[in-house]
Amino acid sequence: MIQTKVLLDESEIPTHWYNVVSDFPNPPAPPLGPDGQPIGPEALAPLFPMALIEQEVSAERWIEIPEEVREIYQMWRPSPLYRAHRLEKALGTPAKIFYKYEGVSPAGSHKPNTAVAQAYYNKQAGITKLTTETGAGQWGCSLALAGQMFGIDVRVFMVKVSYDQKPFRRSMMRTWGADVFASPSNLTNAGRSILADDPDSPGSLGIAISEAVEEAASRDDTNYALGSVLNHVLLHQTVIGQEAQKQFASIGEYPDMIFAPCGGGSNFGGVAFPFFADKAAGKDVRLVAVEPTSCPTLTRGHYAYDFGDTLGMTPLLLQYTLGHDFIPPSIHAGGLRYHGDSALVSQMYKEGLIEAVAVPQIATFEAGVTFARSEGIVPAPESNHAIRAVIDEALRCKESAEEKTLFFNLSGHGHFDMASYDKYFAGELVDYEYPEEEIERALHNLPKVAVG
Amino acid sequence: MIQTKVLLDESEIPTHWYNVVSDFPNPPAPPLGPDGQPIGPEALAPLFPMALIEQEVSAERWIEIPEEVREIYQMWRPSPLYRAHRLEKALGTPAKIFYKYEGVSPAGSHKPNTAVAQAYYNKQAGITKLTTETGAGQWGCSLALAGQMFGIDVRVFMVKVSYDQKPFRRSMMRTWGADVFASPSNLTNAGRSILADDPDSPGSLGIAISEAVEEAASRDDTNYALGSVLNHVLLHQTVIGQEAQKQFASIGEYPDMIFAPCGGGSNFGGVAFPFFADKAAGKDVRLVAVEPTSCPTLTRGHYAYDFGDTLGMTPLLLQYTLGHDFIPPSIHAGGLRYHGDSALVSQMYKEGLIEAVAVPQIATFEAGVTFARSEGIVPAPESNHAIRAVIDEALRCKESAEEKTLFFNLSGHGHFDMASYDKYFAGELVDYEYPEEEIERALHNLPKVAVG
Repeated sequence: MIQTKVLLDESEIPTHWYNVVSDFPNPPAPPLGPDGQPIGPEALAPLFPMALIEQEVSAERWIEIPEEVREIYQMWRPSPLYRAHRLEKALGTPAKIFYKYEGVSPAGSHKPNTAVAQAYYNKQAGITKLTTETGAGQWGCSLALAGQMFGIDVRVFMVKVSYDQKPFRRSMMRTWGADVFASPSNLTNAGRSILADDPDSPGSLGIAISEAVEEAASRDDTNYALGSVLNHVLLHQTVIGQEAQKQFASIGEYPDMIFAPCGGGSNFGGVAFPFFADKAAGKDVRLVAVEPTSCPTLTRGHYAYDFGDTLGMTPLLLQYTLGHDFIPPSIHAGGLRYHGDSALVSQMYKEGLIEAVAVPQIATFEAGVTFARSEGIVPAPESNHAIRAVIDEALRCKESAEEKTLFFNLSGHGHFDMASYDKYFAGELVDYEYPEEEIERALHNLPKVAVG
Repeated sequence: MIQTKVLLDESEIPTHWYNVVSDFPNPPAPPLGPDGQPIGPEALAPLFPMALIEQEVSAERWIEIPEEVREIYQMWRPSPLYRAHRLEKALGTPAKIFYKYEGVSPAGSHKPNTAVAQAYYNKQAGITKLTTETGAGQWGCSLALAGQMFGIDVRVFMVKVSYDQKPFRRSMMRTWGADVFASPSNLTNAGRSILADDPDSPGSLGIAISEAVEEAASRDDTNYALGSVLNHVLLHQTVIGQEAQKQFASIGEYPDMIFAPCGGGSNFGGVAFPFFADKAAGKDVRLVAVEPTSCPTLTRGHYAYDFGDTLGMTPLLLQYTLGHDFIPPSIHAGGLRYHGDSALVSQMYKEGLIEAVAVPQIATFEAGVTFARSEGIVPAPESNHAIRAVIDEALRCKESAEEKTLFFNLSGHGHFDMASYDKYFAGELVDYEYPEEEIERALHNLPKVAVG
């Protein structure tokens, strides 16, 4: 019997999150306020508890995971590391392929790793309500689950077109006790002003963020939670890579290349950052962020200070960006439709510490089907981006007869994304290329701030 | 850190299936042909490979699991045993509650345990196509996955109303390469004759079975596969209970009562049969089959020879039945809508070796939501039946201050059943009671065969 899964005992759930900043050759650039001056922690206090703000700016290498958070992690962690024997055979590649499967969480993706931590620290700070936005609903589900575990009411502003067309993640949020509102809603000034202009507005992630932030900022008992981009979010996800390191060590293997989808960066950071610690210590490992050609933030964007949201309400972060007013095409990997990227991931790419590649939509679904037919699990559309890049590399290894060890993060299952597979089989998916003229336009529209 | 999950290494996947007949005090009654005479193996040969027919009638205690089947089991087995700490706390019960989670399979339920075995034996027998029927699609998905693993084409006749209304399990079957047809179809005489009478027929499981059986019986390269009821199907599911025995032993616990949903019997048999071996050897353990009040086969049915299908095409099996022409109400636990029950489970109930209880629909969803809000996982509607019975027992333990150890099979997740949770929250679910007059009617319509 050849081993397929590498499991860890619950007692091996990491005890600390790893802070990648501690291994940076250069310190991160500070976030800026609307006046172009660096902002302090107090600027974030209306939205986040101080414990998370401290993590956001921390340079400490290890941050202890509270016992209460690890107890919730026990529901699904440690997640299994799989050797993809059948995929290797289907490809005829000499490469070894491994994947970490985060779809085992109750919400079906890696997102609860940070949702649980955020709910915990808010609870500790006396917060009784959390607001957030969600598109297709992966993040909203994760926060609903986390809020339920700590007795925090969760209020989710769900983009109206998804609220209407994708009802089942909405149902799941309600099953976990969250209140879900179609955004734009009548509950906020932001929502009401949009509805006044256009009562039939389909909504957008940008609008939903504005509604969630407005509610959180205007109530003392209410905070806001974000599912990616911010430093503390990526920090919480490092349990993925740390477990993988132990799992590889237990079988005497080590990856040559690591792949993860990259939208806001929490998926990529979660799996890649702990291995970057090895790389910083001299280990030879390549870290590859995979993004859609329709929203090629790292590979085609500008490295500049920009807003995190569409309306320009957030602090400015130094990041790769396609411009905060860029609306990515409606690809099915909703989690990768983000104009910007994590400041940490952006800096690492800028400094040549990591790599990035962009892949087109149809090819990602082709890869996902190949994976499902060999490994069984039907992947989320976001995860299909990593699978595409891994298969491409495995086929290169076949050409060159290289026995590389490839590793990727299978960040979630596709149980709530089957309509997109239907479109793939029906030949109805479209590949979008980022238009050349957008590059100039984005540069022109960036906020006017000198890059440090 | 208090232990939540009990895991086993892949090397502990059972090597043999356990045949419960070997512990029966009385031998099982034989299946009968249309003439009322016992049938031999040859009567089943047009539909099943000889290896499965031999398992169907075997009295051997242990039947070896082929290496190739165990290799596929490695994709998700051994499945975890959970201690439901949070559910216990939410109920305030002194009872200990454990559950085995079978939703970790790629298809999301326990069904692949037998689908994989059936696909393997058919492949060995040179069969290149398998036909089957499916309602909501859980079984069709499992056979699609299994067929893909062994290079067998799978043709699924899906009840038309589900085909139209529940597209996502259909998408999943296609992702695993199966051909899915709305039944009644134009592909078979059975389908054409129904369509001739009613071009808008919504279909039924009975019609879909007729179509699948007709295709299999009329082609040498094609066999038929069934997801429950038959002895060999329940046999394959005994990996569940065997793993649970090892898991309990590893933590020094043993269940006082075991609960599982019971429709055709494969869910209940899979978890309960291996523990029946302990019971037969003198161990004090109660085995409880949980069925819906709308389809109370064991608790209200007749113990008699009856057909397995609606149209009366199958051999006669001695079983608890509500009459083969009974159409169960459209409850959301589609897997429990079956007029009859496994002959093995039926005999055990008749002889007082196991117990049964019926629970109403709305209360099962209430239990499922309580479970999801404490344990995280959103359960399948079928699984909610077991959860209801376990919660009821845990609350009795609270009254009586008994520290019983309760164990149930969480047979699958509810990711494809969220519409039924929506109906629960909207107050649109209905409780059906089996009408008293049906009992007489069913008795009147039973085939006229003397019970041995």
